[in-house]
Amino acid sequence: MSGELAVIGLGPGDAALLTPQAAAALERASDVFGYGPYLARVPMRTGQQHHASDNREELDRARTALELAQAGARVAIVSGGDAGVFGMAAAVFEAIERGDPAWRALSVEVIPGISAMLAVAARVGAPLGHDFCVVSLSDNLKPWEVVTRRLAAAAEAGFVIALYNPASRARPWQLGAAFKLLRARLPATTPVVFATAVTRPDEHIAIVTLAEADAAQADMRTLVLIGTAQTRLLRRPDGSAWLYTPRSAA
Amino acid sequence: MSGELAVIGLGPGDAALLTPQAAAALERASDVFGYGPYLARVPMRTGQQHHASDNREELDRARTALELAQAGARVAIVSGGDAGVFGMAAAVFEAIERGDPAWRALSVEVIPGISAMLAVAARVGAPLGHDFCVVSLSDNLKPWEVVTRRLAAAAEAGFVIALYNPASRARPWQLGAAFKLLRARLPATTPVVFATAVTRPDEHIAIVTLAEADAAQADMRTLVLIGTAQTRLLRRPDGSAWLYTPRSAA
Repeated sequence: MSGELAVIGLGPGDAALLTPQAAAALERASDVFGYGPYLARVPMRTGQQHHASDNREELDRARTALELAQAGARVAIVSGGDAGVFGMAAAVFEAIERGDPAWRALSVEVIPGISAMLAVAARVGAPLGHDFCVVSLSDNLKPWEVVTRRLAAAAEAGFVIALYNPASRARPWQLGAAFKLLRARLPATTPVVFATAVTRPDEHIAIVTLAEADAAQADMRTLVLIGTAQTRLLRRPDGSAWLYTPRSAA
Repeated sequence: MSGELAVIGLGPGDAALLTPQAAAALERASDVFGYGPYLARVPMRTGQQHHASDNREELDRARTALELAQAGARVAIVSGGDAGVFGMAAAVFEAIERGDPAWRALSVEVIPGISAMLAVAARVGAPLGHDFCVVSLSDNLKPWEVVTRRLAAAAEAGFVIALYNPASRARPWQLGAAFKLLRARLPATTPVVFATAVTRPDEHIAIVTLAEADAAQADMRTLVLIGTAQTRLLRRPDGSAWLYTPRSAA
């Protein structure tokens, strides 16, 4: 088989954060698959086909891409951020495991990207400066009890927490429930970052306390970071602030 | 003050994973600070000064860089991977908090990079495909009891675990102790990845089981990933394998 599949992380949005490796793989592709808003970021070169699909159709998208690669095409699947962090990479390997055994012989390359948590952390300072956890708040694929168990364990063990998929129209109450759980375990003054559309023209970043954190500030494009009792807020003369978690934070 | 400080993540090593934003900031810098092996990756342009320092001198390095920025220089500090993940970013803000109050008025920009965990995950498949924790095994700056408490919490709550700083000459026993703790909480078949010098010419990656995992396989340049009971190993016809953690893993 001569086809290939590249699973590519596009980074958070700013083209200056797309790696040269990802750009080269996009340039080489005959066919590019992805959720519409991510695909819209990929310049279409002559002869290249773009296949947009809905957000909820990861496995179908992966299967279609694998079939096309099997037929000899140079296929790319794109994710925002890093494809391995709540992106398309796991869906592709899930499709391979459940699919045509011949797919295991295909050339499949995962190309890493700047994940949203890294981009958000860089924007506000160094909030991930010590041990941290990364949790998807979506209960589409796992029970909500698993999410709450992990959040409780993370808060009690002193991890900074990065929350992906905090809210959507179909999941309106989960973030509020998560804040309630965390308020019972962390100081009211614990810093919380709401970062929406980071590095994109409509970027919006707010730093509040856990006591003030309002789930309505988040939507599908938001990453939420929750510090620890030891995360520090440094006020600057212009009124802005940096946030960082000391390397020694216990 | 006209000086500026950029804290730059160089990515794991392959120049194709250095972002254009990081490359531009390096090009602009009059002075570049960093641990020798990271600094050696930065091409020196005419007139640019490189200041190499030892691995253990993060705070001193940060202070010297801040003083130079305060004097009007365009200063860069580099880290391998992402500067916000066990890199120089937290040390810089710690130096600012403890240092000259005027430093809070300086222009400080953190430029994210592809962290080792993302590069390693991409190399082996999608092991970070669901909730995960990132832990530094170094007890130079935090008590060892904090590390063990976090590892136990992470394993019990079903997180994939990425271990940074697993071993060094000065910390030879910690990784063995961590494996012992994890063997008491996770199945013997849990996959463990030892990834050394990922994306560099001397890259070496091994996938073993937790039962087989030998701490002697890790050194300062190694990232260790520990899956969960649900992380899957997909054998390929050529004898190699992909590792992924299903999105639904509970």
